[in-house]
Amino acid sequence: MKLLEEKILQDGIVKEGNVLKVDSFLNHQLDIDLFTEMGKEFKRLFADRPVNKILTIEASGIAIACIAAQQFHVPVVFAKKAKSINLEGEMYTTKIESFTHKRTYDVIVAKKFLSADDHILIIDDFLANGCAVEGLIDLIRSAGATVEGVGIAIEKGFQQGGKNLRNKGIRVESLAIVDSMDAATGKIVFREQ
Amino acid sequence: MKLLEEKILQDGIVKEGNVLKVDSFLNHQLDIDLFTEMGKEFKRLFADRPVNKILTIEASGIAIACIAAQQFHVPVVFAKKAKSINLEGEMYTTKIESFTHKRTYDVIVAKKFLSADDHILIIDDFLANGCAVEGLIDLIRSAGATVEGVGIAIEKGFQQGGKNLRNKGIRVESLAIVDSMDAATGKIVFREQ
Repeated sequence: MKLLEEKILQDGIVKEGNVLKVDSFLNHQLDIDLFTEMGKEFKRLFADRPVNKILTIEASGIAIACIAAQQFHVPVVFAKKAKSINLEGEMYTTKIESFTHKRTYDVIVAKKFLSADDHILIIDDFLANGCAVEGLIDLIRSAGATVEGVGIAIEKGFQQGGKNLRNKGIRVESLAIVDSMDAATGKIVFREQ
Repeated sequence: MKLLEEKILQDGIVKEGNVLKVDSFLNHQLDIDLFTEMGKEFKRLFADRPVNKILTIEASGIAIACIAAQQFHVPVVFAKKAKSINLEGEMYTTKIESFTHKRTYDVIVAKKFLSADDHILIIDDFLANGCAVEGLIDLIRSAGATVEGVGIAIEKGFQQGGKNLRNKGIRVESLAIVDSMDAATGKIVFREQ
């Protein structure tokens, strides 16, 4: 998606350790007009899929998922990073390792919000090693629901997450795929799509 | 806002300890079409204010803030609950006591996303004792920015947060104000607005 690639080139900052900072428009300050265009693009890409619910994970996935959901006219469910096991009702749970925070979270969704009849589109801001998406797929499959696809804002194409998911037959659509980036020069190369 | 009050009566669950569970449409599963109507109502209520940015706090405030921001055509900034002090760049920080989780969070916003020129609308899902909003006001004032108002989905009118804010001259607009609720009968009484 040209608009997102141009925004990344304009405002993204490449840091040592394969970090791409996009906090001025994607995950701390949020460019909502850009998100609206991203939502329309997700709808175009998954127009053939019978999506009845969007699943994401707190916190930065929520914004993109909600704006996309407007296009699909479906509810969003966001998985929560569990702060305690003291949780009411029955939950599906999984563990997700965070690339950014270098720790493992327990992640939960209330069972009443995922059922075997659901056709789920997963939406998240970043795809790198794929741990977050794999965790969400685990939650969906615990419920016997169907994974219709995965919509990502920015995929780090030089990490294995996207490749691993596609090799398993999961449909992954990323609005921008970074094939390489260089902290010394700031250069970012996108995959042709 | 009648639509929200009706949804609360239909799907909200009153629990012991002054807990109103609205996780089926407001803060775990999210009814995006309802949020779109709420966003329009926030725009109507604050149409006279020169809002150039919306501030909220992760996680459940993000969804409502983003959908509202579409109506204002302004960016959203969400304050983060700090997981570590190992944060890059300069941050405004404050402490917020959570009613739900019975603990205190360090909450941060990158300084580059709040400036003295900003006219901020705060948006959040709940207003009870007002600690979250007071913390966000503290962040805004640290930056020398202007608080244009506070937009809330559900205010617990029997707690002191809304009253305290209004007494300080802050404009608070809540789409639904619960004046009383009873866990035994499930009865919810809204304030006339």
